[in-house]
Amino acid sequence: MKKIVTLGEIMLRLSVNNSEKLFQADQLTMHYGGAEANVAVSLSNFGHDVYFVSKIPENPLGIAVERQMKANSVHTDYLMKGGERLGTYYLEIGVGQRSSQVTYDRKYSSFSMLRTEEINLDEVFSGVELFHVSGITPALSQNLKELTLLALKKAKEKGILTSFDFNYRAKLWSQQEAAETIKELLPFVDICSCGELDAVYILGMDQADHSLPREEKLRYYYSKLIEMYPNIRYIGSTFRNIISASTNTLQGNYFTEGELYQSKVFQIDHIVDRVGGGDAFAAGILYGILENMPSEELIAFATAASALKHTVHGDYNVFSVDEVVTFANNGAGKIVR
Amino acid sequence: MKKIVTLGEIMLRLSVNNSEKLFQADQLTMHYGGAEANVAVSLSNFGHDVYFVSKIPENPLGIAVERQMKANSVHTDYLMKGGERLGTYYLEIGVGQRSSQVTYDRKYSSFSMLRTEEINLDEVFSGVELFHVSGITPALSQNLKELTLLALKKAKEKGILTSFDFNYRAKLWSQQEAAETIKELLPFVDICSCGELDAVYILGMDQADHSLPREEKLRYYYSKLIEMYPNIRYIGSTFRNIISASTNTLQGNYFTEGELYQSKVFQIDHIVDRVGGGDAFAAGILYGILENMPSEELIAFATAASALKHTVHGDYNVFSVDEVVTFANNGAGKIVR
Amino acid sequence: MKKIVTLGEIMLRLSVNNSEKLFQADQLTMHYGGAEANVAVSLSNFGHDVYFVSKIPENPLGIAVERQMKANSVHTDYLMKGGERLGTYYLEIGVGQRSSQVTYDRKYSSFSMLRTEEINLDEVFSGVELFHVSGITPALSQNLKELTLLALKKAKEKGILTSFDFNYRAKLWSQQEAAETIKELLPFVDICSCGELDAVYILGMDQADHSLPREEKLRYYYSKLIEMYPNIRYIGSTFRNIISASTNTLQGNYFTEGELYQSKVFQIDHIVDRVGGGDAFAAGILYGILENMPSEELIAFATAASALKHTVHGDYNVFSVDEVVTFANNGAGKIVR
Amino acid sequence: MKKIVTLGEIMLRLSVNNSEKLFQADQLTMHYGGAEANVAVSLSNFGHDVYFVSKIPENPLGIAVERQMKANSVHTDYLMKGGERLGTYYLEIGVGQRSSQVTYDRKYSSFSMLRTEEINLDEVFSGVELFHVSGITPALSQNLKELTLLALKKAKEKGILTSFDFNYRAKLWSQQEAAETIKELLPFVDICSCGELDAVYILGMDQADHSLPREEKLRYYYSKLIEMYPNIRYIGSTFRNIISASTNTLQGNYFTEGELYQSKVFQIDHIVDRVGGGDAFAAGILYGILENMPSEELIAFATAASALKHTVHGDYNVFSVDEVVTFANNGAGKIVR
Amino acid sequence: MKKIVTLGEIMLRLSVNNSEKLFQADQLTMHYGGAEANVAVSLSNFGHDVYFVSKIPENPLGIAVERQMKANSVHTDYLMKGGERLGTYYLEIGVGQRSSQVTYDRKYSSFSMLRTEEINLDEVFSGVELFHVSGITPALSQNLKELTLLALKKAKEKGILTSFDFNYRAKLWSQQEAAETIKELLPFVDICSCGELDAVYILGMDQADHSLPREEKLRYYYSKLIEMYPNIRYIGSTFRNIISASTNTLQGNYFTEGELYQSKVFQIDHIVDRVGGGDAFAAGILYGILENMPSEELIAFATAASALKHTVHGDYNVFSVDEVVTFANNGAGKIVR
Amino acid sequence: MKKIVTLGEIMLRLSVNNSEKLFQADQLTMHYGGAEANVAVSLSNFGHDVYFVSKIPENPLGIAVERQMKANSVHTDYLMKGGERLGTYYLEIGVGQRSSQVTYDRKYSSFSMLRTEEINLDEVFSGVELFHVSGITPALSQNLKELTLLALKKAKEKGILTSFDFNYRAKLWSQQEAAETIKELLPFVDICSCGELDAVYILGMDQADHSLPREEKLRYYYSKLIEMYPNIRYIGSTFRNIISASTNTLQGNYFTEGELYQSKVFQIDHIVDRVGGGDAFAAGILYGILENMPSEELIAFATAASALKHTVHGDYNVFSVDEVVTFANNGAGKIVR
Repeated sequence: MKKIVTLGEIMLRLSVNNSEKLFQADQLTMHYGGAEANVAVSLSNFGHDVYFVSKIPENPLGIAVERQMKANSVHTDYLMKGGERLGTYYLEIGVGQRSSQVTYDRKYSSFSMLRTEEINLDEVFSGVELFHVSGITPALSQNLKELTLLALKKAKEKGILTSFDFNYRAKLWSQQEAAETIKELLPFVDICSCGELDAVYILGMDQADHSLPREEKLRYYYSKLIEMYPNIRYIGSTFRNIISASTNTLQGNYFTEGELYQSKVFQIDHIVDRVGGGDAFAAGILYGILENMPSEELIAFATAASALKHTVHGDYNVFSVDEVVTFANNGAGKIVR
Repeated sequence: MKKIVTLGEIMLRLSVNNSEKLFQADQLTMHYGGAEANVAVSLSNFGHDVYFVSKIPENPLGIAVERQMKANSVHTDYLMKGGERLGTYYLEIGVGQRSSQVTYDRKYSSFSMLRTEEINLDEVFSGVELFHVSGITPALSQNLKELTLLALKKAKEKGILTSFDFNYRAKLWSQQEAAETIKELLPFVDICSCGELDAVYILGMDQADHSLPREEKLRYYYSKLIEMYPNIRYIGSTFRNIISASTNTLQGNYFTEGELYQSKVFQIDHIVDRVGGGDAFAAGILYGILENMPSEELIAFATAASALKHTVHGDYNVFSVDEVVTFANNGAGKIVR
Repeated sequence: MKKIVTLGEIMLRLSVNNSEKLFQADQLTMHYGGAEANVAVSLSNFGHDVYFVSKIPENPLGIAVERQMKANSVHTDYLMKGGERLGTYYLEIGVGQRSSQVTYDRKYSSFSMLRTEEINLDEVFSGVELFHVSGITPALSQNLKELTLLALKKAKEKGILTSFDFNYRAKLWSQQEAAETIKELLPFVDICSCGELDAVYILGMDQADHSLPREEKLRYYYSKLIEMYPNIRYIGSTFRNIISASTNTLQGNYFTEGELYQSKVFQIDHIVDRVGGGDAFAAGILYGILENMPSEELIAFATAASALKHTVHGDYNVFSVDEVVTFANNGAGKIVR
Repeated sequence: MKKIVTLGEIMLRLSVNNSEKLFQADQLTMHYGGAEANVAVSLSNFGHDVYFVSKIPENPLGIAVERQMKANSVHTDYLMKGGERLGTYYLEIGVGQRSSQVTYDRKYSSFSMLRTEEINLDEVFSGVELFHVSGITPALSQNLKELTLLALKKAKEKGILTSFDFNYRAKLWSQQEAAETIKELLPFVDICSCGELDAVYILGMDQADHSLPREEKLRYYYSKLIEMYPNIRYIGSTFRNIISASTNTLQGNYFTEGELYQSKVFQIDHIVDRVGGGDAFAAGILYGILENMPSEELIAFATAASALKHTVHGDYNVFSVDEVVTFANNGAGKIVR
Repeated sequence: MKKIVTLGEIMLRLSVNNSEKLFQADQLTMHYGGAEANVAVSLSNFGHDVYFVSKIPENPLGIAVERQMKANSVHTDYLMKGGERLGTYYLEIGVGQRSSQVTYDRKYSSFSMLRTEEINLDEVFSGVELFHVSGITPALSQNLKELTLLALKKAKEKGILTSFDFNYRAKLWSQQEAAETIKELLPFVDICSCGELDAVYILGMDQADHSLPREEKLRYYYSKLIEMYPNIRYIGSTFRNIISASTNTLQGNYFTEGELYQSKVFQIDHIVDRVGGGDAFAAGILYGILENMPSEELIAFATAASALKHTVHGDYNVFSVDEVVTFANNGAGKIVR
Repeated sequence: MKKIVTLGEIMLRLSVNNSEKLFQADQLTMHYGGAEANVAVSLSNFGHDVYFVSKIPENPLGIAVERQMKANSVHTDYLMKGGERLGTYYLEIGVGQRSSQVTYDRKYSSFSMLRTEEINLDEVFSGVELFHVSGITPALSQNLKELTLLALKKAKEKGILTSFDFNYRAKLWSQQEAAETIKELLPFVDICSCGELDAVYILGMDQADHSLPREEKLRYYYSKLIEMYPNIRYIGSTFRNIISASTNTLQGNYFTEGELYQSKVFQIDHIVDRVGGGDAFAAGILYGILENMPSEELIAFATAASALKHTVHGDYNVFSVDEVVTFANNGAGKIVR
């Protein structure tokens, strides 16, 4: 059981039920989630001692967030209260040929307006072994850009393992703005979730030779990434093949010490809710690293965790280590009774 | 069928089902409403030709608002699109001893940031016989204060009947700020919804003699109001006695040409949803005035409309003139079959 | 356990949920019921051997009716299949000041088009001790008028106790048409459910002296009824005081051998579903007569049965004799645990 | 924005939720729809000025229909009120190996009993550019046969583009009866939705050579159709391959000026609700013709519109032109956020 | 219509809705079922005269069981009442990659504590043509082991056809305990549902040669089974290929007079609820044997029945013979309307 | 913030929705609760540091209990895992004239089979200021009788304030058995929830003089109780007047230092869920004692807490101190907006 900190926004997600369009709906299902919150919950369900650092409004929605974190055994000591509102978004869950649609209403959120001086990083990082943040956090405001950089630097100073997930959101910032910021952050990162598109469009790498198999291209990008930032020791990503909104394939990639490890290809059919699938994967990678899992086992575990997440509603991966391992080993099975 | 214009904000209301607290909820029921939108819908259901002037975001929530207005036969020619967001609030519907709780998330709404120059009042008011606005509109921003004043003045210039409902919201502005603004508006108002507390706390009248019966006090306040603003020709309000969140009594008051007319006392038990009850009353008053109803009949009609509204979910009074009249005459009856 | 036959229509009832108006609804709750079907279910739940005679279409709705009857242990041997459709109605359940609204869609139903020759009354009545029918049956068609008369005559010939409930429905026939038919039926009736309004408006009695207390008026009507039809041995009715759609009072009346017996006044607050309340009362009366209950006990039982029915959704009184007796003796009580 | 008229029945559809059989259900979901109403809604959502001509009862179900049309911006000027009932049907939505089951209760509907003299076709067709009707309308009654013929003739006289969808319903009329009527109508039709089975079983064409590829057979039927009715300028149909009730493939066919254009094959998995899929296709064809889309683009658009319709509940295609085009170009995509 | 008896436990099944984990749920869906109860319901829906022998508690859950059996026309004459509780289990219905999870709470149930002397087998078996029981019954208690053996012996004495389904449940007993008991039962069995794993792990047969095709292996096991128990005349089983919790293939096997008959392979996608699928198959086999269906037809019918069961919620196969036959002949088809 | 321990059973409660009888239901709502768990949650929501001591099974229902406790900030350090099952009960929530009905299925629960040696009371009680247990705990088993006595003794030895709520459950033990046990416990109790019926039927006091007012009778019983057990320093109870299952009045009583303090009479109409109302009251008393509230204020607070509990679903009082105080001071109020 290790002490872990994640820093990010948690939002209210309001999903349309019954395969309707949002403009036809009269009922919404509430979930709370956000990239770093999801990683926190997942690692806590895996048995670690996780602190989620964020800011939520002092109203019933804030209380709900706090209660959910506690129910998942995530520590709320640094879940600040105040500010104007909880970031919110509306989700039409895609099905078959119809893609999911997100309608954001997240501006002016308490977290996005957090000021650096509200957090005492020395206190937050005391005794911590792992710090995780994603590209969403610096995308939210100038303050949060500074805070993210400061936190990564401070973590490195203290010898804490640092993890960064690109998580590029086109609705939050341009590729150029993201590039400038993320390039400043990467020198302080040990573990990195970074996909092919991130390599090309954010980091500006030349496209790999089109004739290469996909995994060769990834080796090329990852080798280059480590050339650029030799501090990065572990890289992860998934190959997701979108057959329809209901059917995807998923294969996990894990790159360390110059080697690429790939999981088998999971056929995910049919998808209940894919939001949070990437965070479940990231949490799986982090768990494997903390547990010193062999690389093949690690990528199998992380990808299985992500695949399972697709079968439950809500952003959180609520499966235990045992459940993930059983699934990674046995696959979809029969009813045990 | 007369042409009517109302101007105001329409919000998304998200209500908790099942007598839970908001922080326990995982389902919300969606309704759309706002004081002036509710009056528009009600008058349209009464058979008039109503235009609702507002601004909504260009997203699926905006589309939903537009579709609902159309379903209620309210014209959307002046329902502008743009801006950042739809004002939102969360409602725990009170029951028994527990009061309803409102959690606002309405700042930065498209309507609240509307600029005066976005509306061509000459066009909007062309051929119009009645203009209605409430105190919520000027409370939302400095721009809207100016727009409200401008609209009332312009309407008077054009010989349009004007209606103003105090609708004081403590969470939006202080009594003093409200007083300053409303006193500027009242010289341009023909029809006014104004309660005892408004008279004392907003208009600063001395409290009526405590030993007087309640209707005498009201006569005193209304006479004074008309002394201050001789342009006001019709005043309405309700006496609401809150026995519990589920049980209220309601009596309508209507003051014109120096006479106070009161409806019978309606026992409303049990209340399904009281939000919009005041707007249903205001619309009933306006309908009666437009129809030249005798005053006793008018106040009976308006109060019955309000009482009926309490028996359906959502802000809108969806009853027809026939339904209101039948209820005003016969009260709660047996099953007709 | 006695053999009982009831004859009548069973309909699909589609109720609006959530205190909406029917035109706003997108979900309906299904129940099946009808006056004589409800009496059949109630007497079966009280332990008798009941046959329900009717006709339903040969489609899934017909299957549903049949399954429900069987689940309630009502025999379906004479539940014929065929014809065009199941009579249907839509119900907005009233609440507080808003009355329930029924929208009928029952024309051309399989039962309404039943021909007399489809039933072998000799077979149906073999071994039967009680036959019950209501005024709804003859109101549905000329054929059913004839069948009702024939059945009552045949039952009397066979020495079967006969029961007739006026159940006047203004949407089905005029008072005059009802009068003509019912006056033909009454000479063959032993047990009669007949209210004050039936006496005056259907049977054409002079109104009782207005200054008399309500129970005196009833004695007057009932004495007259027995003068007109000396074959009638038992008469029942309820005094229902409608405070609102959610709150009624209910008092049972039972007249036999020249004496009027009245139950206590039940305060029914709040009402879940009053449809079927009259049928639960009629079944209670019939049960008491079959069990030779003392008259005071009988009317207490029947009225308690009706009061309980108001607390569950659906037309059927699903309470057992024990539950009704416990309630009649102890009233609304505390949680037993 | 062009003025369009469609003529047909709109029904209440009551669907079983939760993968139950209708006889087990206790909740039904309400939708309203009908072939020509669906086309009207779709063309209105595509931005045209559509009038739906029909007749609905004067009750809350009629009000619901009217409100829905208005919410979809369909004009209701010629939506007559009166008659006995709204046609109704019950739908068990198929899943996997289980087919959808329809239980009709549509006889005696207000529309089916509409008389020709109730419509002033001169007024209805004033300024109209397109008139659409399907084979369901003449199948409903002798009157409607005459009205359909009259309307098509009148439209042609006025130079209006006419569209006819075979929409053969075996539960409404025999193939022979359909053949007689439809052959009378086709001389007045410009645009025709007609499948292989229609060509053989309704129009009595000889079957195409079995050894031909499917599109060759279709070319043969369509060439013959145009030989028979040279007035027909555009023909459309889909090839639907039913793998299961949850999985279909769909390919659109469009024939004009002697050429057959085919869309790509859409894999629709899993299907939310396929009712209305054909109407969405027909509306797509009509939209394309009105917009003078190139034929390849037209058939891609129409088929994409139909495929999208399968992913939402209810008969209506509620997607905008933009949404259809995006989907036609990009297919099922990732979450945009 | 033949008289049939089944003996076994019926349980309350509480399923989690909405693809949640049980620990997140706040709503559960209730179904009742059990292997032998399911066979009883299925054979009753196929038109036979079925008696279900069991014991249920004298409480509302027991009443619910009884009502459901009656609704399905299953006789409840030998459904005893008493004991402590109804066996219960919680079900997370699997989806995609996630397997279904069963949480049992079935100990101390009324049925599991049934004593042999509570049943008069002579009375129960009077006039009976078929007796069915599964391996779950003897697994529940020592008493039920004895009762199962006694019942099979008694049935054979009376010339009744006997049917036994292995239904091995690892959570109820060990393979060794099952083996001892089942070997005592098999000499009295005519019809046997027994899979490959049962042959190897319960009956202790040597594994068939791995290089053989699957059907050859089955022939080998079944031939051996009949060598061991020459009294067994009919054997059935299914080959189920679990692609995911949502997608299975299913092929039925039927062995009689030395010949193996196989159905086509059904692709079941997507699965609504597979619990009870095996019982639907067993009932199909029994129906076929009672009807003297040719073996090819029999196995087609039984497998189609099982495939259809996967498309409805709840344990019961509620389809009629007609529906199964139509599906067996035509497969998943289009909407008939 | 004081350290508090409660000891007792927590059960799964399965409530019927929609005013149906349990035997008609197909959906159940899940809540978890139990007398001492409810007090724990309430005191935690009031800001104290509460430990709930109990035993739950190692299955998903146990996980759900644990998560809920954590969400309510109750410590689960002594929430043991193991044993056979979670005690369960089914609840038909009463409405109007119909009483709530409880169907218990709680035998063999993990907690009821807890052995004394599983708890280290010295560790549990370290630093604790208040220990609370109710009469349900010793009623569950001989072991728990001994554990309850041991715990109360140990707590007194350590100078911990002890609280005991009679909570007599007739379905768990006889009055005589309760009397024997409780009389052994009371010498170690400081705070006691004890009603009039407890005094007479459990403690065997002579009935107070019938002519006395109710509060005088209570003074008599409480004075006697303190004569018998002079160690008892605080006594609480409520006068609940059951008008119907939907309407109760509630008045709180608090006796200390020879004085009886009574709250005002709360009219609770209509009741959402009264289960847990007594525990909310008990927790209110305990909170007041820990805070040294003046006695009038204390009893107002405790009774207001109980009244509020009746307005939300579930056993827990989820209101904060602020919400209770606001309600105690202002009563049911208007919507604040």
